[in-house]
Amino acid sequence: MTAHLHRLPAGPVDLTVIPTDDTPGFDGGKKQGAPALAALGDELSDLQERLWAERGTGSRRRVLLVLQGMDTSGKGGTLRHTVGLMDPQGVKITSFKAPSDQERRHHFLWRIRHALPEPGYIGVFDRSHYEDVLIVRVHGLAEPETVERRYDEINAFEAELAADGVVLVKCMLHVSAAEQKERLLARLEDPEKYWKFNPGDIDERERWGEYRTTYQIALERTNTEIAPWYVVPSDRKWYRNLVIGRLLLDHLRALNPQWPPADFDVDAQRQRLLEETPVS
Amino acid sequence: MTAHLHRLPAGPVDLTVIPTDDTPGFDGGKKQGAPALAALGDELSDLQERLWAERGTGSRRRVLLVLQGMDTSGKGGTLRHTVGLMDPQGVKITSFKAPSDQERRHHFLWRIRHALPEPGYIGVFDRSHYEDVLIVRVHGLAEPETVERRYDEINAFEAELAADGVVLVKCMLHVSAAEQKERLLARLEDPEKYWKFNPGDIDERERWGEYRTTYQIALERTNTEIAPWYVVPSDRKWYRNLVIGRLLLDHLRALNPQWPPADFDVDAQRQRLLEETPVS
Repeated sequence: MTAHLHRLPAGPVDLTVIPTDDTPGFDGGKKQGAPALAALGDELSDLQERLWAERGTGSRRRVLLVLQGMDTSGKGGTLRHTVGLMDPQGVKITSFKAPSDQERRHHFLWRIRHALPEPGYIGVFDRSHYEDVLIVRVHGLAEPETVERRYDEINAFEAELAADGVVLVKCMLHVSAAEQKERLLARLEDPEKYWKFNPGDIDERERWGEYRTTYQIALERTNTEIAPWYVVPSDRKWYRNLVIGRLLLDHLRALNPQWPPADFDVDAQRQRLLEETPVS
Repeated sequence: MTAHLHRLPAGPVDLTVIPTDDTPGFDGGKKQGAPALAALGDELSDLQERLWAERGTGSRRRVLLVLQGMDTSGKGGTLRHTVGLMDPQGVKITSFKAPSDQERRHHFLWRIRHALPEPGYIGVFDRSHYEDVLIVRVHGLAEPETVERRYDEINAFEAELAADGVVLVKCMLHVSAAEQKERLLARLEDPEKYWKFNPGDIDERERWGEYRTTYQIALERTNTEIAPWYVVPSDRKWYRNLVIGRLLLDHLRALNPQWPPADFDVDAQRQRLLEETPVS
């Protein structure tokens, strides 16, 4: 399965023609999906550990997975099931909420810069700087000229990151309005899920069309060669998890991190240990 | 298996009489250890999600797992195998290195306070404020009176945390000098492990006896009722991982976090969704 088939082509974006419930490139259903994801674990872990090990050599390479999508599209589930396959020591997750008063007093990228992964890490953004051209635009929380400027600022920012060793993997979790309705109803039917429900989610849902248009603009404007968008069909959770796992794997393979050579004399150190004064 | 049998009794500590390679309370060997650990995953995840959900109710409860131990004792392996069983979204890991210049200009607990888990999280410290009474004491990096004062400061700090909803789980990963030697040699035999080796590890190893004495003092002085120490036999990696998994589980069970009730009218929200103007 090549996850790259979900790479968004350049040009105008029409989300209504991109399926939400297809499972292209995968021969199998839900039953095969979970083991297929689990099967990525070993290679993901190995590549992640190499990337982690590389830190010691002064490498600045790292990965930043950006997860965007409407409520219930499965950002949390992706963290648990896909990101959860990796060693938590090398993963840095940041969930962006409505900005605090302090964050609001800074440029919108200020808090984003603070949350960037250090070299060797896999950073994950659960929501991101894209909220500043999505919810902000839909609700008119900034002047139109400000939002307009932000697309270019985002592109410049991401180019800067790429030049500094950050591999960006930007995923839009694409769910249908019908699937969102099912998921919201499920939260209302199970007392163990009440905590996930917020009446505001229905208010946002009423602006579904506006959000779609706004996503389309954001995707088109920021779908750069260096930081392209992937639109991941997300009506089937198992497929969404698998595609994002494959995307991480493909990008880590392309990075091809190497075990660093010894920066000391291996034989001399071995001798030191073998000939030590007994320690206890 | 009750992990509580590793709880350190009050009073003077003699690490030489605490076994490093026993597997008390577990009927089985390495082959049974990994599945026994995996079997904890579902309940750990469930309890972790309840704790996470509780945040929304204003609960301040959270867990802080403190991992201390000599080089190669397996702090990293515990993160990967045991902490890795949980949802990474609700886990906050901090690895403490030698303090930076800025950190040195502050009280030793300053950087520790900055790294505390927020309510709902499972925080994990890979090394901790205990370094300030361990390596610092062994190397004379602070005045003796300063170190002396720190035991009390740590106890006061941990009491403050406990009163603020933090459940402390302090684990000393207890390995033998012989096992450390094997692990260091293994790092020198496998080019994929060179990066984990640092010649300074052997220098530290030469002070094994001093470290043991210093650990004993620290353990005795900070083994409080509210934040007791667990000394985890760690020569067998699978047993160490399992014991720490059990300790997390036992403490989460005792916390017994509950799914929060709905703070909205469930039926009214369901009606809103069922009667909505079609959305697409």
